[in-house]
Amino acid sequence: MFRQESSAEGFLTLPANIYEMFPMFVDISAKRVVVFGGGNVAERKVRQILESGCRNIEVYSLDFADELKKRYRNGEIECIKCDLWHADIDKIVEGAFIVIICTDDDALNERIYEIARFSSSLVNYGDKGDMFMSSVIRKDGFIIAISTSGSSPAMARRMKRRIASVICDDDAKMLRIQTWLRAHLRNFVHDPNQRREILNNVLNSSECWEALDDDIESAKARIANFVDSMIEMMQKCSQ
Amino acid sequence: MFRQESSAEGFLTLPANIYEMFPMFVDISAKRVVVFGGGNVAERKVRQILESGCRNIEVYSLDFADELKKRYRNGEIECIKCDLWHADIDKIVEGAFIVIICTDDDALNERIYEIARFSSSLVNYGDKGDMFMSSVIRKDGFIIAISTSGSSPAMARRMKRRIASVICDDDAKMLRIQTWLRAHLRNFVHDPNQRREILNNVLNSSECWEALDDDIESAKARIANFVDSMIEMMQKCSQ
Repeated sequence: MFRQESSAEGFLTLPANIYEMFPMFVDISAKRVVVFGGGNVAERKVRQILESGCRNIEVYSLDFADELKKRYRNGEIECIKCDLWHADIDKIVEGAFIVIICTDDDALNERIYEIARFSSSLVNYGDKGDMFMSSVIRKDGFIIAISTSGSSPAMARRMKRRIASVICDDDAKMLRIQTWLRAHLRNFVHDPNQRREILNNVLNSSECWEALDDDIESAKARIANFVDSMIEMMQKCSQ
Repeated sequence: MFRQESSAEGFLTLPANIYEMFPMFVDISAKRVVVFGGGNVAERKVRQILESGCRNIEVYSLDFADELKKRYRNGEIECIKCDLWHADIDKIVEGAFIVIICTDDDALNERIYEIARFSSSLVNYGDKGDMFMSSVIRKDGFIIAISTSGSSPAMARRMKRRIASVICDDDAKMLRIQTWLRAHLRNFVHDPNQRREILNNVLNSSECWEALDDDIESAKARIANFVDSMIEMMQKCSQ
């Protein structure tokens, strides 16, 4: 049945637009997010949006999953109980930065989408809208977002676990040192190209990576020494 | 000097907002992007935006890097030569989805930022704006975006290379099979929870991963068999 019917499908191709999504990291703490639907999918998406510090989330539905009810009681989100077939979608959508469509009624989803797509909001709707969410790793100062452009969320989650496991303690330490170096070098080295060269040299130096075996303060001191001699050399060269 | 002066800094901390950026993948093909500055940074950012299929990019500057001039001649971007100290920034920014500020004049950047931040555009400006770009991997159907919230682009690029290397051929094959399965299962299994269970079972089955050693069509056939028996079992259980 499944096998026979689908074997005529021929070669498997990925959607044409798979690479044409632009990844960006946005501060949505002050933005308005509207969610249509109150089920498990809504719950999952709301959770991810809350993680980014957004506190202006409105959820529209007839029923709400328990977790959403709890968040409403905690004052984390607004839950607006309504029959979306008779709601003024235009008005609800107006001024929203993101609109998420995930009711369990396909026809209703389509109705909402046909209105929302002409608004100025970004629309998240299965693999149809113009905005995809992703599997996200927040670890040791890194944020890593993994998408398959909606074609396989399960596969994105699987890659998430694998990728999280390749970020090790030394990376976390090096990121902290690079962040500090990048900020403080500005006081010592005027030329941005020279600053970039120094940062890259630290990143490519086995000596600096070895320094990370020590505690962070000792590592920092050793790497500062390394940077010091590099600055000295640059100054000699420019004299 | 560098070492002595900076050793008083004490413990290294990451910026407080490091985790509060929301990663999203957006179709910007029909959106307007405004870039202030025509140097190497602008060139790099323009290249990344072009990769996402955006063809409505305006670059404002007195001078333009060679690569930008070439893209202008190819009709890929607009280059508008002007003295931004005397330009009507408000008007330029109006209606832009993204505004990127990267002239080599810090005071000018600040002037532009003080206007752009009150617009409805997303603003990319060093570590100050409300939108960060990232290091991006586009490989085998995956899009992976890596950010350090602007604190260390060099470290993000380093992680990019490492992460790209953990995506292997089998992952690419499995993604294509999952994408195909997910689309076609809809015709055979009505319950979305059951469909999700099947997709996850395939992903967790060593038999299905072993099938990927074959060419993609044979792998697809073996995995379709596996799915077939799973559907049969589910039907028996529900009878």
